[in-house]
Amino acid sequence: MQRYKITMAYDGTNFAGFQRQPNQRTIQGTLENAVNKMSKFDDFITIHGSGRTDAGVHALAQVAHFDFPHDIPAQGMMRGLNAILPLEIEIIDCEIVDANFHSRFSTHGKRYLYRVSRGRFTNPFKRNYTGHYKYALDIERIKQAMPDVEGTHDYSSFVASGSQTDDHVRTIYEATVREDQANDEVIFEFYGNGFLYNQVRIMVGTLLQIGNGSRPIHDFLRLYEVKDRAEARETAPASGLYLKEVVYPKED
Amino acid sequence: MQRYKITMAYDGTNFAGFQRQPNQRTIQGTLENAVNKMSKFDDFITIHGSGRTDAGVHALAQVAHFDFPHDIPAQGMMRGLNAILPLEIEIIDCEIVDANFHSRFSTHGKRYLYRVSRGRFTNPFKRNYTGHYKYALDIERIKQAMPDVEGTHDYSSFVASGSQTDDHVRTIYEATVREDQANDEVIFEFYGNGFLYNQVRIMVGTLLQIGNGSRPIHDFLRLYEVKDRAEARETAPASGLYLKEVVYPKED
Repeated sequence: MQRYKITMAYDGTNFAGFQRQPNQRTIQGTLENAVNKMSKFDDFITIHGSGRTDAGVHALAQVAHFDFPHDIPAQGMMRGLNAILPLEIEIIDCEIVDANFHSRFSTHGKRYLYRVSRGRFTNPFKRNYTGHYKYALDIERIKQAMPDVEGTHDYSSFVASGSQTDDHVRTIYEATVREDQANDEVIFEFYGNGFLYNQVRIMVGTLLQIGNGSRPIHDFLRLYEVKDRAEARETAPASGLYLKEVVYPKED
Repeated sequence: MQRYKITMAYDGTNFAGFQRQPNQRTIQGTLENAVNKMSKFDDFITIHGSGRTDAGVHALAQVAHFDFPHDIPAQGMMRGLNAILPLEIEIIDCEIVDANFHSRFSTHGKRYLYRVSRGRFTNPFKRNYTGHYKYALDIERIKQAMPDVEGTHDYSSFVASGSQTDDHVRTIYEATVREDQANDEVIFEFYGNGFLYNQVRIMVGTLLQIGNGSRPIHDFLRLYEVKDRAEARETAPASGLYLKEVVYPKED
């Protein structure tokens, strides 16, 4: 047995999320089909992802691992999987790793990107790849709010029902916003040690309301106190969210 | 009755082309559903496009016209249609025009854009929005070939079977190629008085072979002479093609 770590980009539009579900087209299920097709082995090979992504959420560099019964070079594994996988999933890196490596438990942090397209019209080419916000936005207000997003906080106001954990304390190392003038987009990035269910999308929904002026600039500070999901109402759509990077500790 | 000229962008990925067909999801059929829903009129209103686009081909500014029984301002018509249409089609301009205007017969020319993504991997986010070419390309060779594409020629070598005309002489006013380094793409544009069935896609297929070195730089000149579709073998995929502009003569 050899453990493979794969890094992949995927267009989540036509998947019911990462996690395998019966009678649904999922990222995990599609990867497992491909890996098991390659192994021709009796025992089912399970793919372990760094974490789930929801239906419609994309990845620029999701990470997963699996144990494979045959000795195939990493480059050959990557080529073989890419030949079998649909074009919506592309393996962009593959390495053979130590059996101690675990795509989920070894993570140091994750980086998410959120794209918001602006303007009066919904652009037909962006409907699956951005959120859309047609109201006025003052980016300076959002920039002033971003430092409040960083740090260690109880994010109970920012977790959707359906979360499988009661511990809502997480640390966001870095939270930034920038304008992409050429594409008329606003782009958020969040780098943290872990994120709750729908947390990034709820934070973006709140930040857009701050930018629109319908919330005070420092409303995050109040939301940390009240710990009430009903207070952070808007959830930005899945289509704008990208898992950009899964970070593992550097080896010694 | 009033005649409306509409300009629209659409993502052609999930349409069986522009032209209405029974039991198929088409641009024309979807537009006609929307317009007839708005009219609540007994007589069926037909949409007249500037021309067809194939399954999977996109438009940045396709033009169509139709006659409508009620007197609705152009802005109201645009808003109403956009509220009914799926997000894949967006009306970006609407004007009330003279009854002599015809979206197809009044055209002066059309401009098409073709996007080729390069690189070893197929990018999951570009699979429906570009063609992909993973082999070596010498853009300088393509640049030297582009002047051969311009002018008035018999394009019989560049027309797919299924064309509904025997007259294969057309004029291309302008043909350009440029590299988009940031996105690792090669972008072609063709402006001409009319294009044959699959003509742009066959020309791009041939130009990529010239860039790859598997055809001589001035092979277009030979292809104009031989008038043989079998000689221009490759047809670039529909996903990279965009109808960028439909040009009408300026009014006096």
